[in-house]
Amino acid sequence: MTTVERTRVAIVGAGPAGLLLSHLLAASGIESIVLDRRSREEIENTIRAGILEQGTVDLLVETGASTRVLTDGNRHDGIELRFAGEGHRIDFPALVGRSVWLYPQHEVLRDLVAARLAAGQDLRLEATVERVDDAATTRPRVIGTDAAGRPFEIEADFVVGSDGSRSVVRSAVTGGTRGDLFREYPFAWFGILCEAPPSSDELIYSNSPDGFALISQRSATVQRMYFQCDPDADPDALTEEQIWEALRLRVPGTELQEGHIFQRDVLRFRSFVAPELRHGRVALVGDAAHTVPPTGAKGMNLAVADVVLLHTALVALLDDDDERPLDAYQEVALRRIWKAQHFSWWMTTMLHSTPEASEFDHRRQLGELRSVVESEAGRTYLAEAYTGWPLETRLV
Amino acid sequence: MTTVERTRVAIVGAGPAGLLLSHLLAASGIESIVLDRRSREEIENTIRAGILEQGTVDLLVETGASTRVLTDGNRHDGIELRFAGEGHRIDFPALVGRSVWLYPQHEVLRDLVAARLAAGQDLRLEATVERVDDAATTRPRVIGTDAAGRPFEIEADFVVGSDGSRSVVRSAVTGGTRGDLFREYPFAWFGILCEAPPSSDELIYSNSPDGFALISQRSATVQRMYFQCDPDADPDALTEEQIWEALRLRVPGTELQEGHIFQRDVLRFRSFVAPELRHGRVALVGDAAHTVPPTGAKGMNLAVADVVLLHTALVALLDDDDERPLDAYQEVALRRIWKAQHFSWWMTTMLHSTPEASEFDHRRQLGELRSVVESEAGRTYLAEAYTGWPLETRLV
Repeated sequence: MTTVERTRVAIVGAGPAGLLLSHLLAASGIESIVLDRRSREEIENTIRAGILEQGTVDLLVETGASTRVLTDGNRHDGIELRFAGEGHRIDFPALVGRSVWLYPQHEVLRDLVAARLAAGQDLRLEATVERVDDAATTRPRVIGTDAAGRPFEIEADFVVGSDGSRSVVRSAVTGGTRGDLFREYPFAWFGILCEAPPSSDELIYSNSPDGFALISQRSATVQRMYFQCDPDADPDALTEEQIWEALRLRVPGTELQEGHIFQRDVLRFRSFVAPELRHGRVALVGDAAHTVPPTGAKGMNLAVADVVLLHTALVALLDDDDERPLDAYQEVALRRIWKAQHFSWWMTTMLHSTPEASEFDHRRQLGELRSVVESEAGRTYLAEAYTGWPLETRLV
Repeated sequence: MTTVERTRVAIVGAGPAGLLLSHLLAASGIESIVLDRRSREEIENTIRAGILEQGTVDLLVETGASTRVLTDGNRHDGIELRFAGEGHRIDFPALVGRSVWLYPQHEVLRDLVAARLAAGQDLRLEATVERVDDAATTRPRVIGTDAAGRPFEIEADFVVGSDGSRSVVRSAVTGGTRGDLFREYPFAWFGILCEAPPSSDELIYSNSPDGFALISQRSATVQRMYFQCDPDADPDALTEEQIWEALRLRVPGTELQEGHIFQRDVLRFRSFVAPELRHGRVALVGDAAHTVPPTGAKGMNLAVADVVLLHTALVALLDDDDERPLDAYQEVALRRIWKAQHFSWWMTTMLHSTPEASEFDHRRQLGELRSVVESEAGRTYLAEAYTGWPLETRLV
């Protein structure tokens, strides 16, 4: 028979959202168990985008979750919007007094894993969660098998699903319905990592007649770049020269620093919001609750915003027996989520070509880009969203 | 045999664009003939929207084309965006130091016709233009039949097509191709005129689960209102009560002042930009050059912006034999046209429901509306476009 363990908060998923939540809860004196089916190596080597909003960086630093972001990360004071053969800089500090930081997600994960382990966090890796039972009671349970294949059962005061877009916890919240808050895009990103110096100090978002491209950075010697491709594209079907040709075509006017391409992948574009974010004593955060397309870099930042809210709600629930903040969690979190969904959709549709787009649509898009860059208000509106709206901590 | 008459500028179409151009040319000492197939009564009684940008009003007043706009028109210092059951005011003077004016287009036309006739303008009504010949020469000719059915031929230094969306002049510029800069929307506006006091001091743009509605004004006793409908809707198929019910549903939270509905029409939504705006000595302005959907009220204002540019170009051409401003006309005019096409598309798509819209699309739309109204930059960006970007007069 399986022994039933107890904890206050069982957190399923050791991504940025789950680890940060355990970190914030520990600082509030609330113990938790964090579970993930992946190994530490897998977690720390997942390649993801790495643009952190100012508020995300401030939070990581203030709570001691990462100080390395300030030394090893790079502050970016702007982005370039490139269209019709010209670049237009969006100057974040001048417009909104904030910046963003380039600091890849796996670096955030390394910092968080190290911090949690140093603090004695109960972190169970290679543990597969099968389901969450009794969500509607005050004793929800997480059921699964551990690294050695032995079954386990954890009873908690609260269970959090931070287990990503293929969340197992989600069905305990939504009853298994996917809902209809879903959108697929008719394109994807072909992403590469290459050995080359940076082609630009800041990110370049390029709209071209041949489609979108994003020139990003990673380090002094390794760069990350993307170009719009078919969702069914085979990442291995192109030669290195074909990849460079595709990038050059899509960023006319910028000389790209080329070098050996040592990783390539195709990122599909999806938007999703779970029909419910909380049921009884189970709640969802991050990708388990919502997916955004990568344009605009809102994914991880939105997860952090969820966690900050849920942390407030859990402290009120578990320390003060006050359910009101938790009752407000879904509504308050959804306000930011839908703004971020809109922003991600906006950046995506303003910059990409769709197969069915007419010449009218393309010119309208250029009219939009021109409207934004020619207007200080337009640039400010974009910069506010890109650098991140203020993090909400109040729920009621 | 037809006698060939001469003039400096032959203007085909006595709408706001054509009449204003003849007015500006006369002030610059350049004579013109204005032709229109309609009678004065028809011209002066065409019901159209009536939101004038600040720059349009300033121009009408400064050039003496209309002073009545200031006394009979109504300055509007804002609009309301209504969604999710709440209204949000966009305060124009506070955001951009400008306003708009409610002054119906037929009033502008009455002022312009009166001013032109008082100034001795050669204004030929009920004259049907059949075609424009020799566009590429320095002596383009306008060919047609007059009110009495007699053929006429006018040779000019320049011909202007200000003859609306069904322009006859356009083919002399474009060679008869419609081009592909065209977009149809899967909805229309059901518009009414009714005998009632105003329901609101300012326009209300309402996004509702049942679709869009616009509460506009006309006078103290007559109101203009619209609601989104099928493009093939029959305006006579609804009872008055059904129309009020449709409006009430789409503007929840606002009590509508109801009264007898004495006019009803269905306005289709189209976007169009001519593939060329000028060929040799013929150019297009206003609806002959472009059509915008009515959301955002850019139609007549955009025509005025074209006319201001073309006036500059014609003075340089005809007084100084300088073709450079004329050569720049298309490129400079298109910059504003595509910004206005974008703005009209943006206001339309942000506020209307489309038949194929999913629940995701609808929530994203609410996220967008919330992003705009919660951000001073967002409200300013919208207000700048709504009240009108500064009128360009320089071409080179």
